[in-house]
Amino acid sequence: MAVELFHKNETLQMRKKLIAQSCRLFFSHDPVKIVRARGQYLYDENGTQYLDCISNVQHVGHSHPSITQVAGAQMDLLNTNTRFLHDNIVQYADRLAATLPKKLSVFYFVNSGSEANDLALRLARQYTRHQDVIVLDHAYHGHLTSLIDISPYKFRKLEGQKEWVHVAPLPDTYHGIYREDHPEPGQAYADTVKSLIEEAHKKGRKISSFFAESLPSVGGQIIFPTGYCKRVAEYVHEAGGVYVADEIQTGFGRVGSHFWAFQLEGEDFCPDIVTMGKPMGNGHPIACVVTTEEIAGAFTANGVEYFNTFGGNPVSCAIGLAVLDVIEKEDLRGNAVRVGGHLKQLLLQLQEKHLLIGDVRGVGLFIGMELVKDRESREPATEEAAHLVRRLKEDRIVMSTDGPWDSVIKFKPPMCFSKEDANRVVTCIDQILTELEDVQKEDCGKS
Amino acid sequence: MAVELFHKNETLQMRKKLIAQSCRLFFSHDPVKIVRARGQYLYDENGTQYLDCISNVQHVGHSHPSITQVAGAQMDLLNTNTRFLHDNIVQYADRLAATLPKKLSVFYFVNSGSEANDLALRLARQYTRHQDVIVLDHAYHGHLTSLIDISPYKFRKLEGQKEWVHVAPLPDTYHGIYREDHPEPGQAYADTVKSLIEEAHKKGRKISSFFAESLPSVGGQIIFPTGYCKRVAEYVHEAGGVYVADEIQTGFGRVGSHFWAFQLEGEDFCPDIVTMGKPMGNGHPIACVVTTEEIAGAFTANGVEYFNTFGGNPVSCAIGLAVLDVIEKEDLRGNAVRVGGHLKQLLLQLQEKHLLIGDVRGVGLFIGMELVKDRESREPATEEAAHLVRRLKEDRIVMSTDGPWDSVIKFKPPMCFSKEDANRVVTCIDQILTELEDVQKEDCGKS
Repeated sequence: MAVELFHKNETLQMRKKLIAQSCRLFFSHDPVKIVRARGQYLYDENGTQYLDCISNVQHVGHSHPSITQVAGAQMDLLNTNTRFLHDNIVQYADRLAATLPKKLSVFYFVNSGSEANDLALRLARQYTRHQDVIVLDHAYHGHLTSLIDISPYKFRKLEGQKEWVHVAPLPDTYHGIYREDHPEPGQAYADTVKSLIEEAHKKGRKISSFFAESLPSVGGQIIFPTGYCKRVAEYVHEAGGVYVADEIQTGFGRVGSHFWAFQLEGEDFCPDIVTMGKPMGNGHPIACVVTTEEIAGAFTANGVEYFNTFGGNPVSCAIGLAVLDVIEKEDLRGNAVRVGGHLKQLLLQLQEKHLLIGDVRGVGLFIGMELVKDRESREPATEEAAHLVRRLKEDRIVMSTDGPWDSVIKFKPPMCFSKEDANRVVTCIDQILTELEDVQKEDCGKS
Repeated sequence: MAVELFHKNETLQMRKKLIAQSCRLFFSHDPVKIVRARGQYLYDENGTQYLDCISNVQHVGHSHPSITQVAGAQMDLLNTNTRFLHDNIVQYADRLAATLPKKLSVFYFVNSGSEANDLALRLARQYTRHQDVIVLDHAYHGHLTSLIDISPYKFRKLEGQKEWVHVAPLPDTYHGIYREDHPEPGQAYADTVKSLIEEAHKKGRKISSFFAESLPSVGGQIIFPTGYCKRVAEYVHEAGGVYVADEIQTGFGRVGSHFWAFQLEGEDFCPDIVTMGKPMGNGHPIACVVTTEEIAGAFTANGVEYFNTFGGNPVSCAIGLAVLDVIEKEDLRGNAVRVGGHLKQLLLQLQEKHLLIGDVRGVGLFIGMELVKDRESREPATEEAAHLVRRLKEDRIVMSTDGPWDSVIKFKPPMCFSKEDANRVVTCIDQILTELEDVQKEDCGKS
């Protein structure tokens, strides 16, 4: 067992004093202190095990020995910057290129998804010489000044919407303006983007880019209706803009059937810029932007160097390569298909039993279960979702919510998550929802 | 010896194809491939050793075994995010706090100096509710959209100056508007900031912050004249703004006598926000913002979470702690005083011999040697500086230039740099400058 340096209370007191309060803790009223982890399991200071359903960053599993081994070996050898030639960066770019459509062939390595999205914004603007950006409602693209501007999830609580930002409706067929009964929701939602472009043009504004996660995460674990991306890309290209696919949460095989979530749209769809991050280094700070020769060429043509101090260093790239190796060797994409499919099936069965479950959606190990107070009105059951998360913690399961009303239970576990883990969490959810419904019935009977 | 995966030519070809051309190589016509490193020594694919005079990121020396050991042990145990309680982050913040004035007590951990400066900008604006920023001419604060806006070094080549940015003259007593013969250059340069504030106020604009490296690096290894920071801080505070000290290149004991370069200004000077980065993790991507309770409190008061996926994770903080330990155990600050002093002395002696050396300046292991074509006019000797760097490479010494005209030879070596290393590099410089002067005399004789 890992040794604690401070008692939990002392850690908490030091944290309150020394670490900014804007950096929040999970379960803030009774936070968890985790001292070690392996695979999909976390251990607190007393050795209590928690099942981790949300750490998508620790993609191939917490503290995977082969990642640690590779990182240590490269650290012992060399860690310098990209101004020196090194094999790791080119080998890693080559391996990533093999997972992508041919036209996405030029790489920039950075340290975080936020850095990647900021660079994508710079690339799009330099290439198109346009300024404006279209984003999806409720989107979150990062914590930097430039990204808060394109993140309705954040800017609505802060400085508000800039004149160069245009917010398209989230193509959510459960809650959105077009639902599952619409004959062509993909086309209908794409047309909202077309309208936004037309409105912007009327004001004399020009679109540099459409920015979207390939599966909106903070937005509520949304799966785009078929054809949406392809049609949007056509409209955006017609306007002289580029399509930026933010794969920071969804890439590296999480959807199982494909390496990138944008590939769910079919082989004839290809974004112009793809950003990647979180799972890329299994927790090590590494992220990336890949684009076309044309877009990269326009950026080079400005004659200004792009230097990222840590980005693409030999250690980061060695770790990135090791992550790719583990995904392959342990068939984690196959596991995402099998376990994700099993989990979704169990949740769909649970939906038949519990009226609270309004919707179950997802692909691979990217699954959302939305709680509603009423299946007709689809009113979000925010408090019930919060209760479920708190109760699961008592059952030693770490879970979290997402979506505009925090009513979506999100599953984004390490990719080694097993069918047994899925069975365990669904059994617990079943029991907690039953308790919740019993209390609600009792309250009903009383009133 | 480390094994190459690809022949150097193949690495270069793959790099040209796969890595964006905006990411430049040192010695682009004949780049160096480095496969391993230790201390202040780099080794290429043939085992040739290079003396490294510029890798300030590898602060305690390349591939320091105790950093590698600590990193591996923590990676094997746990790497998660700051939403869980952990001892490393609070212990690290506590250790950093001990190096800083008491009022700088609230920490935000991030992944790069750029992320730190962007957050500093957000903090300053949120706290002051002002928008405008004063920066120094030729400054570079990072590669992000928001930071290019406050980096004259970059924005002059790109989008130009925004209306909310005000550029103060670089307090460079060798090249600037007030020189070493001025009775009070600190006050005189500070008054230029006062004038900028007054001009901004006349236009109805409000100053959020004064942003400066504590020793301008890209600007040419500049040492502020005494009293400058203190007076500037007074003027900026009077205007309702805050003083941001960018210590990304200069912190962690590089100046020797103090842990932070801003401390050179005396104990009665304290910035409101300090950003740190490059040397912090000896190459591992970690950076930080520290500020006062008041400023952090204003940021918390907006009610919006600040979450940085990788920032402050247990591995990054373990590495940060290990770096602090090595600085102390190996007395690297003492080494910076001794070796830096020795090196500066040797360069000053060289200046007596070579007319090309216009100025030698610096503290600790942050030293600049400026080459000029003429000591009277101080015309920068840009080509001669480039020649010196190329020739030093032939002597297996990695060196680089800085400053507005790339005429400043910059010394920012790993902090384990020795007196023997200093002797070696100065001997080589002496010889190269002698050759150069011989050729110039010959050319003179011919013309």
